Amino acid sequence: MELKVKDLDISTGGPLVAILNWKDSSKLDLHHLDRIKVIKGKKIETVTIDIAESRKLVPEGRIGLFEEILYSLNLREGDIVKIAPARKPVSIDYIKKKLDGYKLTEKEINQIIWDIVHNKLGDIELTYFVSACYTNVLDIEETTLLTKAMAKQGDILKLDRYPVMDKHCVGGVAGNRTTMVIVPIIAAAGLTIPKTSSRSITSPAGTADTMEVLANVSVNMKKMKRIIRKTNGCMVWGGSLNLAPADDKIIRVERPLAIDAKSQLLASVVAKKASVSATHILVDIPTGKGSKISSGDKARKLKKDFINICQKLGMKIKVIVTDGKEPIGNGIGPALEARDVLWVLRNDKRGPNDLMKKSLKMAGLMLEMAGKAKKGSGFKMALDILKSGKAYKKMLEIIKAQGGKEISPDEIKLAPVDYNYPAYKSGVVREISNRAISKIARVAGAPQDKGAGVYLYKHVGDKVKKGEKMFTIYAPNKDKLKYAKDVIKAIDGIVIK
Amino acid sequence: MELKVKDLDISTGGPLVAILNWKDSSKLDLHHLDRIKVIKGKKIETVTIDIAESRKLVPEGRIGLFEEILYSLNLREGDIVKIAPARKPVSIDYIKKKLDGYKLTEKEINQIIWDIVHNKLGDIELTYFVSACYTNVLDIEETTLLTKAMAKQGDILKLDRYPVMDKHCVGGVAGNRTTMVIVPIIAAAGLTIPKTSSRSITSPAGTADTMEVLANVSVNMKKMKRIIRKTNGCMVWGGSLNLAPADDKIIRVERPLAIDAKSQLLASVVAKKASVSATHILVDIPTGKGSKISSGDKARKLKKDFINICQKLGMKIKVIVTDGKEPIGNGIGPALEARDVLWVLRNDKRGPNDLMKKSLKMAGLMLEMAGKAKKGSGFKMALDILKSGKAYKKMLEIIKAQGGKEISPDEIKLAPVDYNYPAYKSGVVREISNRAISKIARVAGAPQDKGAGVYLYKHVGDKVKKGEKMFTIYAPNKDKLKYAKDVIKAIDGIVIK
Repeated sequence: MELKVKDLDISTGGPLVAILNWKDSSKLDLHHLDRIKVIKGKKIETVTIDIAESRKLVPEGRIGLFEEILYSLNLREGDIVKIAPARKPVSIDYIKKKLDGYKLTEKEINQIIWDIVHNKLGDIELTYFVSACYTNVLDIEETTLLTKAMAKQGDILKLDRYPVMDKHCVGGVAGNRTTMVIVPIIAAAGLTIPKTSSRSITSPAGTADTMEVLANVSVNMKKMKRIIRKTNGCMVWGGSLNLAPADDKIIRVERPLAIDAKSQLLASVVAKKASVSATHILVDIPTGKGSKISSGDKARKLKKDFINICQKLGMKIKVIVTDGKEPIGNGIGPALEARDVLWVLRNDKRGPNDLMKKSLKMAGLMLEMAGKAKKGSGFKMALDILKSGKAYKKMLEIIKAQGGKEISPDEIKLAPVDYNYPAYKSGVVREISNRAISKIARVAGAPQDKGAGVYLYKHVGDKVKKGEKMFTIYAPNKDKLKYAKDVIKAIDGIVIK
Repeated sequence: MELKVKDLDISTGGPLVAILNWKDSSKLDLHHLDRIKVIKGKKIETVTIDIAESRKLVPEGRIGLFEEILYSLNLREGDIVKIAPARKPVSIDYIKKKLDGYKLTEKEINQIIWDIVHNKLGDIELTYFVSACYTNVLDIEETTLLTKAMAKQGDILKLDRYPVMDKHCVGGVAGNRTTMVIVPIIAAAGLTIPKTSSRSITSPAGTADTMEVLANVSVNMKKMKRIIRKTNGCMVWGGSLNLAPADDKIIRVERPLAIDAKSQLLASVVAKKASVSATHILVDIPTGKGSKISSGDKARKLKKDFINICQKLGMKIKVIVTDGKEPIGNGIGPALEARDVLWVLRNDKRGPNDLMKKSLKMAGLMLEMAGKAKKGSGFKMALDILKSGKAYKKMLEIIKAQGGKEISPDEIKLAPVDYNYPAYKSGVVREISNRAISKIARVAGAPQDKGAGVYLYKHVGDKVKKGEKMFTIYAPNKDKLKYAKDVIKAIDGIVIK
């Protein structure tokens, strides 16, 4: 059947979709979400169809195309294309199989991930996959296969070096910008650490957002290699590389129900490490009320699974469970966090002690894993590298390799409108919840406004007097400051007793 | 925040969706699939948001609206609306709960169905619900609550009559138009039978499509009542009434994976019976290779569940398991099936014997259930009503009440282009699969072309000689006939040995 293209002037943001008028679809006995081949000359694209009930959107004889397909087949309004029925992706049968509780084979998992990466599955089909993995939990073997498939269906950073170090934090703790202290220490010790990080999704800043205050973080694979060759390390945004790209597409359908399919979380984290050819990985699982992993039991289970998978993939791994009940560091928001990091690296007394200690502990463990330090002496070695100024020097090298300039922490620009939140009574600070502080910082403008956020003067256990400054909110304008102040009223999570 | 409306000129076909530019969404810290209230004067609608990454589709300061919302808030291009963050529907928590394997309460099930009917859930959320019910199967208590909720969230036909008879066939068998023989017999016996039927989704004809050859089937509740008062029965399209409307929305997300969530199937069938206030129900479960329920075990389990739910709802029920391995009747396709039905009702010798016998058996059981006939004598009573011409007379009454006219079966128009399929060898017919015949009939044009379809001369067990006519394909034009002939080549399912 030949149809005339109608440019719908909309992108779906992923799935390949075409719209047919119901009269045309019924001629070929096609239904909503069936597949067709759209053929233009020698180019063919298989797409999912949606059916227009009226002629308003897509009249008979026409085919409404979204931007993804127009681009891929180089089509424009009024062009003539052929269509023909196509089979559903075979991975749909495998998703059904998992939903029915059966174990998937390597071939089946590879096919599912291939189809996800190539936008062959629609939202509904992808949701069934996530749901199947959530209720009929993947076993370690399947999770390992999923990890491999996710890494393989993307680019791989190849470095002729050993060891290749990496770290990961399961997340949920505000501030906690340890990566930016650890990477310079590890690289200064002569080890390779090709660190990719995410931008914020629901937090006030991801490491990529914070590093972006100091340098460029959007680099391609070639540039990344050049930076690592020069400095041993980097801190770049994973999203600018094509590493394990299935992950983002899966996360998209997890958000509506806040699904955290454990096996899929594991697979996506480890796949990203495998994509940069990491050989030694340190994983931090912050635990406690308000963090992602609320109980010690869950943390221990997750730790075991991380170790199992990495061992199956031939990676060395160490997992630590840390206290995640309150923010780490004082600044929350890209600029405020970058300032904390520079203060720590420059041995400035304003550098937050908790951030420094946690970073040194983790860096120390990594030095031990790599055989640079003897067991028990890693912390000391990391401390020496920091105190000697070598870590700061390495940080400057990396910043410059990533197109940034040296900047004094005091020159980092904060958002212009601020407000000091006073203690509502005298006593001891009992709770500063990650969730509350993150929400305030986000509504104040972080991470879009780099200078926005929250700066804490008090942590849990500190004494305060009524009216004493507990934290400052920085916002780009009065409106945002007002929204942020409204959030404080609506949220509990700052408790003095 | 105030935004200017952009009319997207597209309908979503269900879910209420608005598109914001990412700059606006980030100001309110809103993400893909979050909810907002769209406010115009005193009217408020809560909708799901999608985020435009570029300004091409929806620039900053504007809100892209689909037709459902434009209509509901009476908005047009350029109008100014207010938006404010809104909570997610509470039913999302309940869906998550089911996905986590917990049992749902009456309140929770009611809320989920309310949100489905009112388009408050997006495709992804709805898919999680179907998936949850599929993997963490609802127990009988939950299924009963789901049934009640589905019936309650729609219109109810109230008749001051007792008993109110109904029947249901689980489907999957081509032809099998028993309803149109049974309803006239039951109504002629003085019993009330307000029959609603579906149109075809994946078959060559639903009862509504076939009845439409003879009369109007799209009626509202008021008209339906009038027809029943006059004739004791009706045969109308359920889709023109607002009976248990959650069903269609659920089926929409089941199609991509061909999910048949058993508990949801049960609930939707029984809910539709409850919606017409049925008190006595006969359910037919055709079983065998190629029918929906492939094994006797599955049929017995389904039978038990049907009985359990109906008893909990205070309905009398009888379930029969029948042979569903080949088509019932000779005509497959609306016009061809309608002709078979009229031949049976007119005691014409061309009326297919299998269709007549199965209809009489079922009608007989219904007469017994209602107390009209003694146990064991229902078949005889049904046969008498048929043979006396009373059933045909009743059929004419119903056809006329539904706006049709008397028509001789020989006057029913078939599609003009035909082809006689010859036996490819001599022997005994071993298989005529429902799937093969249905596919041929659909590709030939059924049900859109009422006259298209397949007419069978042979059934399983009949002897044939090589070259002898096995069936005729009727199509509206040569192209469709060609497509249908191509299907025969590609499909196995007609076996002579």
